[in-house]
Order: sequence, then C-alpha cells, then structure tokens
Amino acid sequence: MTDLLNVAILGASGYTGSELVRLLARHPKVALKALTADRKAGQAMADVFPQFAALDLPRLTTIAEVDLAAIDLVFCALPHGTTQQVIADLFAKKPSIKVVDLSADFRLADPEAYATWYGHPHQALELQKDAVFGVSELYRDQIKGAKLVANPGCHSTTSILPLVPLLRERLIEPDLISIVSATGMSGAGRAAKEEMLFSEVSEGVHAYGVGKHRHTAELDQEFDKAAGRTARATFTPLLIPMNRGIYATITATLAAGATAEALHAALEAAYYGEPFVKVLPFGKAPQSRHVRGSNNVQLGVVADRGPDRAIVVSTLDNLVKGASGQAVQNMNLVAGFEATEGLGQLAIFP
Amino acid sequence: MTDLLNVAILGASGYTGSELVRLLARHPKVALKALTADRKAGQAMADVFPQFAALDLPRLTTIAEVDLAAIDLVFCALPHGTTQQVIADLFAKKPSIKVVDLSADFRLADPEAYATWYGHPHQALELQKDAVFGVSELYRDQIKGAKLVANPGCHSTTSILPLVPLLRERLIEPDLISIVSATGMSGAGRAAKEEMLFSEVSEGVHAYGVGKHRHTAELDQEFDKAAGRTARATFTPLLIPMNRGIYATITATLAAGATAEALHAALEAAYYGEPFVKVLPFGKAPQSRHVRGSNNVQLGVVADRGPDRAIVVSTLDNLVKGASGQAVQNMNLVAGFEATEGLGQLAIFP
Amino acid sequence: MTDLLNVAILGASGYTGSELVRLLARHPKVALKALTADRKAGQAMADVFPQFAALDLPRLTTIAEVDLAAIDLVFCALPHGTTQQVIADLFAKKPSIKVVDLSADFRLADPEAYATWYGHPHQALELQKDAVFGVSELYRDQIKGAKLVANPGCHSTTSILPLVPLLRERLIEPDLISIVSATGMSGAGRAAKEEMLFSEVSEGVHAYGVGKHRHTAELDQEFDKAAGRTARATFTPLLIPMNRGIYATITATLAAGATAEALHAALEAAYYGEPFVKVLPFGKAPQSRHVRGSNNVQLGVVADRGPDRAIVVSTLDNLVKGASGQAVQNMNLVAGFEATEGLGQLAIFP
Amino acid sequence: MTDLLNVAILGASGYTGSELVRLLARHPKVALKALTADRKAGQAMADVFPQFAALDLPRLTTIAEVDLAAIDLVFCALPHGTTQQVIADLFAKKPSIKVVDLSADFRLADPEAYATWYGHPHQALELQKDAVFGVSELYRDQIKGAKLVANPGCHSTTSILPLVPLLRERLIEPDLISIVSATGMSGAGRAAKEEMLFSEVSEGVHAYGVGKHRHTAELDQEFDKAAGRTARATFTPLLIPMNRGIYATITATLAAGATAEALHAALEAAYYGEPFVKVLPFGKAPQSRHVRGSNNVQLGVVADRGPDRAIVVSTLDNLVKGASGQAVQNMNLVAGFEATEGLGQLAIFP
Repeated sequence: MTDLLNVAILGASGYTGSELVRLLARHPKVALKALTADRKAGQAMADVFPQFAALDLPRLTTIAEVDLAAIDLVFCALPHGTTQQVIADLFAKKPSIKVVDLSADFRLADPEAYATWYGHPHQALELQKDAVFGVSELYRDQIKGAKLVANPGCHSTTSILPLVPLLRERLIEPDLISIVSATGMSGAGRAAKEEMLFSEVSEGVHAYGVGKHRHTAELDQEFDKAAGRTARATFTPLLIPMNRGIYATITATLAAGATAEALHAALEAAYYGEPFVKVLPFGKAPQSRHVRGSNNVQLGVVADRGPDRAIVVSTLDNLVKGASGQAVQNMNLVAGFEATEGLGQLAIFP
Repeated sequence: MTDLLNVAILGASGYTGSELVRLLARHPKVALKALTADRKAGQAMADVFPQFAALDLPRLTTIAEVDLAAIDLVFCALPHGTTQQVIADLFAKKPSIKVVDLSADFRLADPEAYATWYGHPHQALELQKDAVFGVSELYRDQIKGAKLVANPGCHSTTSILPLVPLLRERLIEPDLISIVSATGMSGAGRAAKEEMLFSEVSEGVHAYGVGKHRHTAELDQEFDKAAGRTARATFTPLLIPMNRGIYATITATLAAGATAEALHAALEAAYYGEPFVKVLPFGKAPQSRHVRGSNNVQLGVVADRGPDRAIVVSTLDNLVKGASGQAVQNMNLVAGFEATEGLGQLAIFP
Repeated sequence: MTDLLNVAILGASGYTGSELVRLLARHPKVALKALTADRKAGQAMADVFPQFAALDLPRLTTIAEVDLAAIDLVFCALPHGTTQQVIADLFAKKPSIKVVDLSADFRLADPEAYATWYGHPHQALELQKDAVFGVSELYRDQIKGAKLVANPGCHSTTSILPLVPLLRERLIEPDLISIVSATGMSGAGRAAKEEMLFSEVSEGVHAYGVGKHRHTAELDQEFDKAAGRTARATFTPLLIPMNRGIYATITATLAAGATAEALHAALEAAYYGEPFVKVLPFGKAPQSRHVRGSNNVQLGVVADRGPDRAIVVSTLDNLVKGASGQAVQNMNLVAGFEATEGLGQLAIFP
Repeated sequence: MTDLLNVAILGASGYTGSELVRLLARHPKVALKALTADRKAGQAMADVFPQFAALDLPRLTTIAEVDLAAIDLVFCALPHGTTQQVIADLFAKKPSIKVVDLSADFRLADPEAYATWYGHPHQALELQKDAVFGVSELYRDQIKGAKLVANPGCHSTTSILPLVPLLRERLIEPDLISIVSATGMSGAGRAAKEEMLFSEVSEGVHAYGVGKHRHTAELDQEFDKAAGRTARATFTPLLIPMNRGIYATITATLAAGATAEALHAALEAAYYGEPFVKVLPFGKAPQSRHVRGSNNVQLGVVADRGPDRAIVVSTLDNLVKGASGQAVQNMNLVAGFEATEGLGQLAIFP
C-alpha cells in the first residue's frame, strides 16, 4: 500500500464528489482515505449514495476531522466562495499537499475578473498565483508541476477544447463566436431547489444565465490568450431534460482565407494522439450519448451552406471530462501516473 | 349542422393528423367528416390512437374513398413530395375546395429554390402560385382569401416570428444570425426508424441536418423578404429528449444604433394584441414547457454582456403552433371564424 | 356574470392549484375570483406559472385576504394536516359556502383510521361527518348535496374505480389483491426536496412508502365497504420518470365461479354511459399516455394464463382525474352543471 | 497474447452486442477477435456505435466469415429462433468451442415447454440437453463445465434471484406470487418498430405481454424446481420511460410460520459473499438507478402492514446483469477466471 497515492475528497455527498468516488474506487494507484460532507458527517457513504453499497469506503466526516498527515492529494468538490478559505487552510496546515479544486474559486487568474464575475474580492490572492487552469490537454506541463489545479467549468471545457486551437491558428474571427451550450441537470448539483425538480425540467427546455453565465469569464480568459487579442463569444446555456452531457453548438465565422476543412484539420492536429479527445470525420456531428459516463470528448466540424461559416460541435459528460474525470486526469498528471490510469470506462450507450 | 365547416384530414394516422383531430374534435364550428390513412384504411381511429376511444369519429379510409362533395376544407398531413399531386387532384375534382397543407410542398414560392432544396422539380407549379405561406400572424390577409395555405415548418415558424419584425425594422445585421433550434422528437413523425427509437434519443442530444436542413430554405425566403436584401442565418437543429417543443436560441448582432431594448420593443409592437404570441418582459427567456400543448408562442429578448449583441429566444409546441394548431388557426382565417376558435387550450405544465 | 359560479383556489402555487386554474380558466360557468399562496402572496400568477402569461387572473393573496362574501365555492389545494383548520374557519365565516378539498384531511370517515394513519387526532371531527368522499362516479348523489367534498387521492382513485365494482359483485377474493401503482413525479407536488430532483428521478424507478403508503387507508375504507367485509390489498407505489400519469397493475384472484370475462363485463356495466371512464376491449391493457392531460380513465382486464387469476389495469392523469379534474367534476355535481362542463380536454399524445 | 481467451460476438450491432464490447474491450484476459452483424457486414463498429470511436476493434463481418479456428468462445447475441441452427453449426464445425447464448433458444430444458411458448418444435434437441441455464449465482458449478450456457432473460434473472431461495426454503406460498416487472426500453433491442419510438414511450407507462410474456416459461421452470412442486406466479411486465433497468415488485404470501424478516434472512444467507448481489437492510427498497451500468443486483424485503404478506423488490441493469454482464460472468466461470474479472464497473448515478 505504500506506493498508493492517498487521497481525500472534500464534499463527497454531491454529484462531483460521488463521481470522484466512482472513478477513484477503481483507480489502481489511489487509496481513498477520507470523504467529507459536513452536514452528513457520520453517515456511511452508501447511505448517501446506495450505488456504493458493496464498497468498503471511509465514513463521511467533517473537514476538520480529516487527518492531513495521511493525505497526499485533496480533491475539493465544495461550493465556490467558501472553497478559497478551505484550501488556504489546507496549505497552511500542510504545505506539501497537492490540491485539485473543482470549484470556480481559482479558475480566473485575474483578480479583477474574479471580483467582477463573482461579486466580491478574492480571499486567497497569494494562492491564486500558484493555481494552474486545469484543461488537461492544453496545460499538461504546468499541471504536472502544480500544487493547486483549478479544474475548469463543464461548459468551459466543452467550448475551450475546440475553440482554443482555432483561435491560436487564427482560423476564425474572435469577435463573431456564438456558443449555445446545452447541458443535462446533474451539472447543477444536488441542492434541493424548485427549478431543479423533475417536474420542472422534464419534457421541456430553457435558456438560463443568458448573457451573464459565470463560465463566460473562463471562456474570455482562454479565448483572449489564444487569440492574442480580445475575443468575444456570446455564450448561452440551455438546460435540457437529461442527467449527463454537455453539447456545445458553436457558430463560427471563418477568418479570411480559412475553410471549414482547415478548421477540421487544425483540431485533428491539435489533438493527435490524445487519448480522450476524438475528432470525428469532417462533416459529422457527435452525439452526447456516445461519451456518457466516459472521460471522452467528441468534436465535429461541419461546413455551413455558405463559404464563410462553420459549425463546430463539442460534447462531453459534464460529470466526467467536465468535472471529476478531468480532475482525476489532472491528478494523474500531478502524481506522474499514466494519463489514462483509472479513466478507461467506455461510454454507456444506450 | 348545416352551418358547420365540413373537414377532411388526409394522413390522420401520423402525429400532425392526430393533433388535428385533438383540436378539431372540440372545435365548435367544425364537423370532422373524413379521416384517411392509406395503409391503415378500415381501422378505427381509436385503434391507431387510443386516446380517442370515447369519441365518435369516422373510420380511416383511403384518400380515394373520400366524398369530396361533402367536404369544404381539407387538411393535408401527408409526406412531402407526394402531396403535390394529391392536392392537384383535389382541386381538379373540386375547384372550390380549400386546402391547408402541412407538408413542405408549397412553402417555397420560388420553383428553383424548391428544386435545389428538394432535389427534383416541383410537380404542380400552377398551384404553387396560389399558395400562401401560412405564418398566420404575418400573412393574415392573404390567408383569409387563400384557396391553398402552405403551413410553414415547425422550426421555421419558431424563428420567423421573432426575426421577421427585427429584420423589417433593420434592427439586426441580416448576415450575422445564428439560430440553434432545439426540438422534441414528435416533429419527426411516426415512421419507424432506428434513430428515432427511445433508446437512441433518451438521455442525450445531438445536432442533425447541420448546414443543410430544409427549413433553411423557408428562413431564407422570409428573411430576405423582410430584410429587403439577401440575409443569411446559420441554422442548426438539435434533437433533445422530449416529445414536444421547439426552442430557438438566436444570437443576433445589432444594427448600428440599435439596442437590445429596441429589439424587445419592436417585438412587443409587432405582436401587440395577438392572442397567441406573448413577448416576455425584457431580459427574460421563456421555457418550452410553458407553451406545451397550446397554440402559444413565447418570445424573449436578453442583452448580451457587450453592447452589440442580443439573444432572442422563441418557443412553441411543434405539433400545435408549429403544425396542427397553426393549421387550425389558418383554417379559422380561411373560414372567417374567430382567430381563437377551437384553440383555447392552455399549456400543460407540468 | 351573475350566473357564474364564483370560485376561490386556496393553494394556487402548487401543481394541483395550477391545474385547477388550467381547467377553470376555460370553464364556461365559473369565474376565478381569488387565488391564494401564502408565501407568494402579492405575486402575479404568471410569475409563478408563466404558462398563464396571457390570462387575466387575480393576483396571489393570502387566505386571510380572500373576500368570502364574493365566493360561492372554494377549492382547497393545501397540504394535509393544516387544511382541517382552514376549512373549519371557512365554514365558520360563511356557513353556506361549498368546499372541494384536495388534501387528505377529510377522506377517512373513521376518526380512528385517521389518527392511525396520520399520527394525530383529527381537528375537525364535526365537519368530517359532513364530508363526502369524492369519487365522482361512485358517490354522485351524495356529492350533489354535499357542502364538503373530500377529493380522493390519486392512487386511490386509480384503484378504487376498477376494484369497487368487482368487490361489490363478489367477483374477486377480497384478501388476495396486489396493487402496484406506478406514478409520475407531479403527484409529489412542487416542494423542493432532494429526492424529487430531476437527477434523482430520471432514468430509474423505485418503490416508495412500501407497506405503509397513506392512500392504503382510503383503499381499505372503500374496499371494505364494497366487499361487505374486511378486504386487504397489498399496495406498492412506484415512482417512474414521467411528469403525469398513474398506472395501477392489479393482480386479482377470481372468486369461485368467476371468470376474467365476467370481471370485464362487470366493469363495462358499472361504467356504461360514464363520460370519463372507458373500459377497453377484453384482453387489452391501456397506456397512461392516452389519458395524459384529460379527465379520462382507461381500464383493461386481461386473463392470466391460468383459470383463477386476472390482471386488471387502470390508468389516469394524476393531476386531472387523480386530483384537479375530479375536483372540477365534483364541483360540477355540487353546482348542478353538466358533468363534462369544462372537462372536454382530450388527451395529449404524443 | 497467448494466454488471452479469444472471443467472437455474433450479433454485435444490437444493444446486447455493443454492451458485450463495452465490457470485453476492457477485460484483461480477453481478446475480441471477431464481431459479426450480417446486415452491417463490412462496416466499422464505430460507425454503428460511435462510442467505440477510440478503440481498435475488428470490422463487422458475416457469421460465415468468422475463422472459428482462432476462437475459443462465442457469444451469441442473435434473435431467438434462428440461433438454434447457428449454434448447432458452430459445434459441428468446432466441437471444442464454448458458447454463451444470450437468446431464448436454449433456456427451456423441456422441449414441450419450448414448443408451447415459442410456437414451433425446437431444432436442436440434442444440444438442448447440454445447455446450462446461466443464472450465475444459482448454477455456478454446472456453468463451469458447460459447453453451452443459456443466458437467462432479463426479467427472469430479476425475479429468479430473489424468489428461488425463498421457494427452496418454503418461506412463501408458491401459488400466490404476483410479479410486476418494470423495464426500460433497451431490453427490446434496436429493431425499428413504431411502438419503440421515443414519442411512443416517453412520458407514459403501459403493461405489455400481459398474461403471456415468454419469460414466464423460465420463471415456471425455475420456480417449480425450487419449490419442488408446481408453482405459479402472475407475471406482468411494464414498459417505463428509461433506457436501462428492470425493477421487479413481488407481492408474496408468507408460508405458515414464516415472517418477512425470515425472508430477508434467507436472502442474506443465500447471497452471502456474492460479489454482485446486495441485500439491502430489512425494510429498504432499492432503486434501479443505483445499479445502472453495473453488473450488480440489489434486493429488498419489506413487510406488508398485515402479518402474512411481504413485498420483495429486485433490481438490475437489463443490459448488464440482465444480459451481457451475466454473459461475461458466465464466460469467467467457463474460462476459470475470477468471477469479477472485467466486471468491476460501478453504477453510474446520476
């Protein structure tokens, strides 16, 4: 057991927490040492998530009860806002610890952007400097050496993966990007709210956070950097009646001289050899169900009927590549494991 | 009974056919005189659609068996392509008959556009000239006098209603429109195809007909006319796991001097007093479930975070306002009935 | 307006409340005079249920604000337990008022049964004596003269309708009844609870309240009375991922000499001429989707492979015939209207 | 590679076929050597099931093209009826081959029962004698030595696992069993049929095959054997709107002297140490979503309110433990692998 990575999950009673357990319980190089859930401390994990009835898991505890001495790496699956202080405390108590944070707290490198989008000043500015934005494929080298990985948002990952290579290669107009990003319900978590009830979500669709969804800030940060100038995407999330999946439909205007085929080639080149990103043949659009339950992303590029626009489509499972799977992928990088270790689950379809 | 409008439904065994029955069976000024379904001729309608078990409906017959002498108006809910000849035959047999056609056959005024999008020359060019494109709110006067109303497509109606007023008023750039139009499954009809199976559609989402969906031709026709120039929308349909509803998320670039508020005002003005079109307060996006089962449309306008773009959202029930409801609305116009006659069903939510 | 029935709905912000609005807003003999929702008092109904955006409805108020002088009949769609006192107060203030109560408070005629199943003594015993159990088809005459109708539970109505005639006719063994009653989510109401979240309900099924669901008490009351002795059904509710519908699968052991065909004949005789109850041809099982959105019930009887058992199936929409539709049906009886007045909505399928 | 088991899947283009690929592609001791799909021969598996886009799989071929010399074990995921001859041919060509058959063809040991339920005489009676009914937990020893394992039906496995121990122990009355078995859509396969369309299945529930479903024959066979006499269950399947999962609600009458607690204890004893069968604490009912995607079964026993009946609930994923997972479990037995090899996938929830 001495060569296993000892891991704690803070916030194990939410969906990203349980998804971490699903992946890590079968990870050959990880030992799950602590699971926390402040309001459910004392309960067995199988009481909160009966799918784990057959596993031998630690009981839920408070964060304070976790023995950090026995922990190498912490996954934080806590609400944003409160996470900053929790992580600052972790490093204060054990400077050598590694953290993969699934909240939004350390995603924005610019403190002003944070304050603008989240409505209050950041509480751990020193730590923010050390955080690496955890799109595994784009920041692999930085993540390998990181003490704190800021796992990106689910919508963000879905759109950043296809758009960053296209912006870097100057193949699309940075100011004329429309993203409509349809998501299943599990991305909203397990808190009981009226608008998340089955009867409010089933058999219907609606846009939410229109013109102001906070993942926009992550898109801005990454698109500006990739484009080398200010980019602007209009980002509209839709809630659709399914549990898992994000599906971004991106309408892009081609840069002068670019073609839809060139976009496709650029994505194929960018993700050549990547185990989790699959670019479909030119002209094909993916389906979210074909990545469900897996850490995979499928990308498609289709030409519009005119010569100057293309439709780029990207899909992933919001709880896996959009959250806990990418978090494990980042842990693998931090710990020096194989990229695919513990992430071999194939998609479940139907 | 002499003052009732005598109506036949050709193609009553499909979903738009059954939806016509649902609406017309309770219409106070209509008598349902004939229902056809060539492959199911001889069966009782309640065998094909058991929800009608308690109604006293005519048995299903072939089209040839319909006694046109007793019919004032015909709804055609047949597949496109074959409909042209069927309708030409109807008028040949009874020139005074009125027809509301739910297929795509008479929607495109330009025969070349038809040939391009449908892959073969139109078979009833003379009749095409008489057809009126049946967006009830936009072509009310022409519909009133029409012998043949070409009921528009479900995606088309959803996007035409919000965009035509905005293009007419020159409030948005006609060349920079992105439409992502999410639809439920019932719009695809009742033919048994693998990709329409429950297991292929549930718990997932995908784009289809990307860059080439035929409803694009209807959008082009109406947007060009409204803009007074060539307009171009990129139109991407999504299939999402629900029965009913279309939800168009439109990213629009504002014309110089225009504001999102001006877009909202223009829609409010355009649909003031319209019984079926509701513009929500500025900044609110509608939900498809709030129009489900009704002939209502809900529109919303939201400003993007920057000054030059707006998100316009439109939703309706694809089988009602997107097909059979609008067909009845058009019948009301043709027959001189009150606009809302037989269309008072409130949305079913949850 | 003087000949309209003036109606108030207490608890209009829940699903049975909104369903009452859907039905009553189109009822030709009813005026909706007051809508209450204590926690949402002051809001417009369209803010709480945007499907009513186009209607001219009274604003939500507290119960105390309702001017009873202007009200002829009150629908109570409030949580059980608190309803007893509210209704007692109504009669205290206005003895001539009529009440249709959708809660469970007045359904059990036996105060001891109430105390046993609900865990506390009944608070309005005098009033309980006046209450009529509102299965419209079974207690039509009593309901006509009632001051207080206790609308039955959704599961209860679904099983009482097929089983009471069979027990009355001594066609089945009263001690060997198994009922598995699958329900959609809307029956649980709009309160935000974790177990009602979309992600907790979608793509799965589970039994709840096994061996102790409170609707069992209503079944006992009605089955004992019908059988003329103590009957005992095992009643197991299932929650399945749909919004609307209850589907009771009843396994019955035939009484000596009885046949499955005799059961079918008894149901046909019992409901002959009833506008809302349809007995399907012998051997056919109904589908819940064929009554969705309507006040209809569909019943089926199928023989088991052996000679001594039959499967009886019953389905209805839990919000309509299982709650608000039957409440309106009872109102029609109380007010002397036609039975079908305002209840002509056909099922929505698909 | 020499120590890998070389496997062919006949019928890889259906859902049980693709599920076998999902499980076997990650099985550490199996090499997938051949995939057949007669009508789709020549296509890549990723064209038929895009979730496998990143895998290196053999192309689809006809059955005739499979080189049996290179195959140790064949999974048959073909339609019933035709399978008999296919398997007879396999053994004729290579007597040493092992077969796990997922069709119904070899499940019934009694040829008369087969002829009665399937409407024609069995075509491979000699082979039928060698077939072992593959409920892994009940027939482990026989399966280990089998040349032909007849994988049981999905409904059958769900009810046999809880009921056989109870009948063996004489704890319940064999003649008074009611089973209502709710299933998701994927169990019906991928053939395009009207009644399997999304719009026909979503938002509704219905019973099918009432009084005559063929899985009843498997139940009879196993229940009679377990009870040591003729048993009789009334078995009613329900189709509910979800992809995966079977949920059997069993109403059982206790044998004289038995208690619900005794039933629970008997199940705990029967499945003690079984890796895939979990008996929940007494009084708890499982949820199908907690086994989704896994090879797990969850069982629950709840006392009815009276002393003489209990409700027994059993749930599994119809495509895993109900089909392909149990097939792999049986392959593990036949090949002498660890029982859990390749079957460690945890349930996906939400």
